[in-house]
Amino acid sequence: MTAQRSDESAHFAAPAPVTVLGLGPMGRALASAFLRAGHPTTVWNRSPAKAEALADLGAAHAATPAAAAEAAGLVVVCVLDYDAAEQILAPAADALRGRTLLNLTADTPERARAMAEWAAARGIDYLDGAVMSPAGTVGGPSAVYLYSGPGDLYDRHRPELAALGGTATHLGADHGRAATYDLALLDLFWSAMSGMAHAFALARAEGVAASELAPFAVGISELMEDIIPATAADVDAGRAPGDDAAIASAAASMAHIADAAEARGIDSALMRAAQAAARRAVEDGRGQAGWAHMTEVLAAEPAGVG
Amino acid sequence: MTAQRSDESAHFAAPAPVTVLGLGPMGRALASAFLRAGHPTTVWNRSPAKAEALADLGAAHAATPAAAAEAAGLVVVCVLDYDAAEQILAPAADALRGRTLLNLTADTPERARAMAEWAAARGIDYLDGAVMSPAGTVGGPSAVYLYSGPGDLYDRHRPELAALGGTATHLGADHGRAATYDLALLDLFWSAMSGMAHAFALARAEGVAASELAPFAVGISELMEDIIPATAADVDAGRAPGDDAAIASAAASMAHIADAAEARGIDSALMRAAQAAARRAVEDGRGQAGWAHMTEVLAAEPAGVG
Ligand SMILES: NC(=O)c1ccc[n+]([C@@H]2O[C@H](COP(=O)([O-])OP(=O)(O)OC[C@H]3O[C@@H](n4cnc5c(N)ncnc54)[C@H](OP(=O)(O)O)[C@@H]3O)[C@@H](O)[C@H]2O)c1
Ligand SMILES: NC(=O)c1ccc[n+]([C@@H]2O[C@H](COP(=O)([O-])OP(=O)(O)OC[C@H]3O[C@@H](n4cnc5c(N)ncnc54)[C@H](OP(=O)(O)O)[C@@H]3O)[C@@H](O)[C@H]2O)c1
Repeated sequence: MTAQRSDESAHFAAPAPVTVLGLGPMGRALASAFLRAGHPTTVWNRSPAKAEALADLGAAHAATPAAAAEAAGLVVVCVLDYDAAEQILAPAADALRGRTLLNLTADTPERARAMAEWAAARGIDYLDGAVMSPAGTVGGPSAVYLYSGPGDLYDRHRPELAALGGTATHLGADHGRAATYDLALLDLFWSAMSGMAHAFALARAEGVAASELAPFAVGISELMEDIIPATAADVDAGRAPGDDAAIASAAASMAHIADAAEARGIDSALMRAAQAAARRAVEDGRGQAGWAHMTEVLAAEPAGVG
Repeated sequence: MTAQRSDESAHFAAPAPVTVLGLGPMGRALASAFLRAGHPTTVWNRSPAKAEALADLGAAHAATPAAAAEAAGLVVVCVLDYDAAEQILAPAADALRGRTLLNLTADTPERARAMAEWAAARGIDYLDGAVMSPAGTVGGPSAVYLYSGPGDLYDRHRPELAALGGTATHLGADHGRAATYDLALLDLFWSAMSGMAHAFALARAEGVAASELAPFAVGISELMEDIIPATAADVDAGRAPGDDAAIASAAASMAHIADAAEARGIDSALMRAAQAAARRAVEDGRGQAGWAHMTEVLAAEPAGVG
């Protein structure tokens, strides 16, 4: 076991060894940031070619996850999902004993809590986390990290995690907390990303290039920065004023978008799903409520389903 | 007919009369902005009570759309959709002859072009437009307007439109252009708004308040401001590099979100629709492509549909 120093002199000590398991775009970015900050970094990846590219940057290339784990007190895993993470970690359980496992793979809160139990049963200290910014931000000021798990364990590894740059938030001892935030934030993110890709398709069908639409689309995204906190306050207060914009108006708008997509042979499934939820609110007599009410509508399965 | 002055002295002239048909949140905001800028403003609304509230601010309350139209050279209509607009305008066609009709109602490009034909056949000058910012922005610096239709007609009415504040863009002579941009931008907007409402529901199911999530959700929206122009450039160039993030990774992420929603009895239809599109890309062997490829995927109906 590599001792992790938690005393105040930690940042005067030589950078501690770190291991990174998984070298997709995010794993590569993490390993590179550790290397740049001077941490002796050991890497492993299912496809060895990606590990060799990291070795050129100074990483040690371990032959197995277990061998990689033995090289450091902090072992970071970041792969496609928890199924992949479990396949990698199961044969390395003995090697991980007494070390800290930090799982930056995105998945559900229940999977994060299950992995915390798995780790606890094997004497492995476990932190869960999520990266809330693109791989290209890692190591720089705009990276965003969420962590959850024991606070003292998080504090112990701050010196290594500082190498990742950006802003880090410890959300509490519940191992599922980072995944909860991650899921909810990616819910917004992938909805917006899907809407953006669809908007480009719809505009192109009318001869408008994506780059012509883009400046206005950025303006639309900027609107969200005021709308999000205002709607959040309404949701938490259980109110949904419709004075400025009503759900019925939104439902009409969504119907036009889906109609126009279908008239051009463009996939309309996402907008039809969004419209159906708004229409349920209208049918329930809440068409004049504001958008905050949609959280209540979406918090339930539609009648007749599930 | 009220003469609209297009010469350079226009802004020294007394503010020209304007009519606003439809007094939902947006129509009220428009009428208020015209009044504040000193334009004699006549209003009409299906439900008369809303017009009376505007009359208290100084507007003239006309008894019919035709009577309202006769009061001004620029007649603005802004209602729920074009079905509603047509119901209002049909009996006012004679009164509108020789005047300019500006339709700020959101609908499809085909509806905008059809209304332009309807207007042309009746000797009505027609401009189409869209408001791309919330009603609360109207009259202030952050309002965003798109217009399309004859350029000289647009120029003639700039003095009145200046009362609405913000930034205005004339997109060209094709009457459908503003609606095209409007639809595509609202596609992004309502996708993001739906994602936000759903994210609040998912977070709440794990005991996280909307206001706790909101600062991070704003951070996610800020990411879009870099992602949109970068993806637009890729889409226009017909490339979709997946070096930083692959569609397969996004599909896995969306599956977790939908799974987590369903496990909590929360509607998952929107995320399942988004996931299904990403999965089609993976099944077509494009799982390692970047997100820009999703515009190509969404530009077609899914096989077996339509
Ligand atoms: N990329 C980003 O910008 C970004 C941003 C925020 C969060 N994230 C999150 O970071 C995590 C990693 O994402 P990523 O972008 O690096 O790429 P990814 O495509 O999600 O994951 C690729 C990695 O997973 C490994 N993998 C997949 N299935 C495996 C299995 N059955 N056994 C062992 N290894 C397996 C791959 O190994 P091979 O190389 O052998 O295929 C590769 O190392 C994801 O949870 C993602 O949501 C990514
Ligand atoms: N509100 C915003 O923040 C916002 C932002 C950008 C764009 N827009 C667009 O602006 C337009 C108007 O939106 P809005 O927010 O003001 O409210 P809305 O709910 O879309 O429309 C309400 C208006 O439509 C009228 N109306 C509905 N059906 C009618 C019918 N069959 N005949 C006559 N009038 C009818 C209503 O009259 P009654 O009062 O009699 O019901 C009211 O004047 C929409 O196209 C919307 O997409 C709105």
